[in-house]
Amino acid sequence: MSIQFQIEASHGAGRAGRLITPHGVVETPVFMPVGTLASVKGVPQDLLEELGVQILLANTYHLYLRPGVDTVRRMGGLHGFMAWDRAILTDSGGFQVFSLSELRKVTEEGVTFRSHLDGSSHFFSPESALEAEIGLGADIIMAFDECTEFPAERERARASMEMTLRWAKRSKDYFEAHKQEVPWGSRQSSVVSRRLDTVSSFDFPVSSKDKHTGNSKLDTRNFGLANDLRPTTNDDAPTQSLFGIVQGGMDLELRRESAERTVEIGFPGYAIGGLSVGEPREVTREVVEATVAHLPSDKPRYLMGVGTPEEIALYAGLGVDMMDCVLPTRAARHGLLFTSEGKISIKQARYATDERALDPACSCRVCRRYSRAYLRHLYAANEVLAQVLNTVHNLCFYLDTMRRVRHSIRLGEGTRVLSGVSSQPKP
Amino acid sequence: MSIQFQIEASHGAGRAGRLITPHGVVETPVFMPVGTLASVKGVPQDLLEELGVQILLANTYHLYLRPGVDTVRRMGGLHGFMAWDRAILTDSGGFQVFSLSELRKVTEEGVTFRSHLDGSSHFFSPESALEAEIGLGADIIMAFDECTEFPAERERARASMEMTLRWAKRSKDYFEAHKQEVPWGSRQSSVVSRRLDTVSSFDFPVSSKDKHTGNSKLDTRNFGLANDLRPTTNDDAPTQSLFGIVQGGMDLELRRESAERTVEIGFPGYAIGGLSVGEPREVTREVVEATVAHLPSDKPRYLMGVGTPEEIALYAGLGVDMMDCVLPTRAARHGLLFTSEGKISIKQARYATDERALDPACSCRVCRRYSRAYLRHLYAANEVLAQVLNTVHNLCFYLDTMRRVRHSIRLGEGTRVLSGVSSQPKP
Repeated sequence: MSIQFQIEASHGAGRAGRLITPHGVVETPVFMPVGTLASVKGVPQDLLEELGVQILLANTYHLYLRPGVDTVRRMGGLHGFMAWDRAILTDSGGFQVFSLSELRKVTEEGVTFRSHLDGSSHFFSPESALEAEIGLGADIIMAFDECTEFPAERERARASMEMTLRWAKRSKDYFEAHKQEVPWGSRQSSVVSRRLDTVSSFDFPVSSKDKHTGNSKLDTRNFGLANDLRPTTNDDAPTQSLFGIVQGGMDLELRRESAERTVEIGFPGYAIGGLSVGEPREVTREVVEATVAHLPSDKPRYLMGVGTPEEIALYAGLGVDMMDCVLPTRAARHGLLFTSEGKISIKQARYATDERALDPACSCRVCRRYSRAYLRHLYAANEVLAQVLNTVHNLCFYLDTMRRVRHSIRLGEGTRVLSGVSSQPKP
Repeated sequence: MSIQFQIEASHGAGRAGRLITPHGVVETPVFMPVGTLASVKGVPQDLLEELGVQILLANTYHLYLRPGVDTVRRMGGLHGFMAWDRAILTDSGGFQVFSLSELRKVTEEGVTFRSHLDGSSHFFSPESALEAEIGLGADIIMAFDECTEFPAERERARASMEMTLRWAKRSKDYFEAHKQEVPWGSRQSSVVSRRLDTVSSFDFPVSSKDKHTGNSKLDTRNFGLANDLRPTTNDDAPTQSLFGIVQGGMDLELRRESAERTVEIGFPGYAIGGLSVGEPREVTREVVEATVAHLPSDKPRYLMGVGTPEEIALYAGLGVDMMDCVLPTRAARHGLLFTSEGKISIKQARYATDERALDPACSCRVCRRYSRAYLRHLYAANEVLAQVLNTVHNLCFYLDTMRRVRHSIRLGEGTRVLSGVSSQPKP
């Protein structure tokens, strides 16, 4: 058993459901905060839990460089290393490596690249990327792909797509041969005892059957922390889930072909990659819509690297189940805050003595306690607390947006939720 | 009514008691974390509350420059501005101004100095410093003094001490004439309603009588948030408390004279200034011991800018009631962590895969959840979360140290607590 995906309601193309992972249940559609280096910058894990984060994304490329896969593996994988018992997803490093355009060289075998930290030379192939992802031990891991640049000629987009398909097969082959090596069972008991008081019900998903079949029952196998009690060679042990990635540039026909041939290889979930690379937003929407149509409806769909609050609501309405983006966390570090009244640049002088909550409609810890004046001061004075509080609020806004999207789909209200989210500057 | 000080137990020169301020009760001896710019760097206020922080220190010089006293005053003073309803103490800016040695000029009237931010020219006198401190609205504020440099000739130390005495009188005169201007009543109701859910019992000190007289009773006047409901011109309204500062360099005779003449002027509490300026630790101890002997036993004694965990325990045993120091917070930002086993430099490679809690004897959120390996990674990767978690732990260590000191004094065990604190590197 790796993951199970249950669709519980739908409205138009959008659907609401549950993704059951070895480290807890994820309600979908879901926005996944980015914790590049095994930390959502500035936010302690218990605050993420309080915000309702059920799954985090971490970046293989960055963790491979620092602290190194072996260090994380020896700590029981990312869950043990970062003391996070809910679900985690890692990318394959492909996107990051391809964004090092000056520092990389691509061959059929893989990619040679230089570290952005010290210029040292490294090599990622589908096999070595998967080896790293297995060592990091996220619940969901991604095939090694080539993110096609934008703009790209059709022949270039086709060639790139073909290589991604060959790499997808190699990723799957490596994964199938090595998936038992996931380090979930290798943590020492000291870690377990140190952290037993943090165990929540999310650590032990109770149902291994579709709730809607009426066959729900307690799953007596142990997940998460309790893995320490099981031998890791057990064939029945939970494993990671490897998702395939659809490429094909902005060409709808190539996207269809990429989707169909990726599905032929066969994965428990499918990602749409190669978007948010500079194309117009309307093109993104077209490609998403066209690609989703060729993905199996009973498998989770993950749109990578997207987007603004309006966009995540929009794409959820198009049938996307999972999204991630650095926008809420990165914008927070630049003092750009999402609110129900529009986007606020907290550095502006007009907030210097503004006693109001950042977003009067928000119930996060930040909006309940602090004034805009204080947040403005923290940002202007370059206080670290500015980053902490701004990030907590922006994540809350994104997670609340997705909560409302899920609620609306379940109520059959579809896109009505869009009226309440806006990335336009506050007037 | 401004403050009340109740000594409830003593052992040798050390004493344990309660300082009742307009914003809550402070158990003494107390260590006050430093929140220079109205923020303990990296730590949200609710975490400070959870750690048991009952009083914070903020720096007048820094807040005068950013965001400016008028901004803070308009937000109801520091309590309203930073959404902190427990007690606050501000220094007078004297120490910071004097540490700008290249940028200042001292006359009888006051000090002209240049901002460390933009080089702009400013002037602090006893009157203008007190005006700033009243505008900031801390519960306890400090007279404007000259921090005598170390080393200093006797005549220089005497002249400096004499000026501090003249400035103490001017500080008190200004304060008495203007103390009703404290902005505690000026917050608007939006702030109150925004924050009502954060009100704790600490916001409303219940006793205005000495507990030991048996006359404890509910004080029906309103403090803290409820001030908004009272007219600010009420003569009965709580005010700030101005403490005097003893100087005199390292000369015990001058210290005696400074203490006696400061007591003659008359303050509700007395600070020992001019220490931790480079003198040997044994000299600090001698001066503290000699000065405390000339301070009234029924008034709180505040030793400024001290010290290591051993030192705060030591000085509490000598009869000091209040201390502050940037050490726990600043050391945290440099990865230096205090533990029951000694000081740890978390950047060291030997912690890279150390699964143990930072301090197995500590019950803070950090030690309950995270491994040394993770803390080491966060620090090495320059993640902001490193500063947050390291600061939380170091503050917990300091506050726990002081808790044990108080407990030991109440049990009549005095300095036995010293055996458990150490700033020496872990072997």
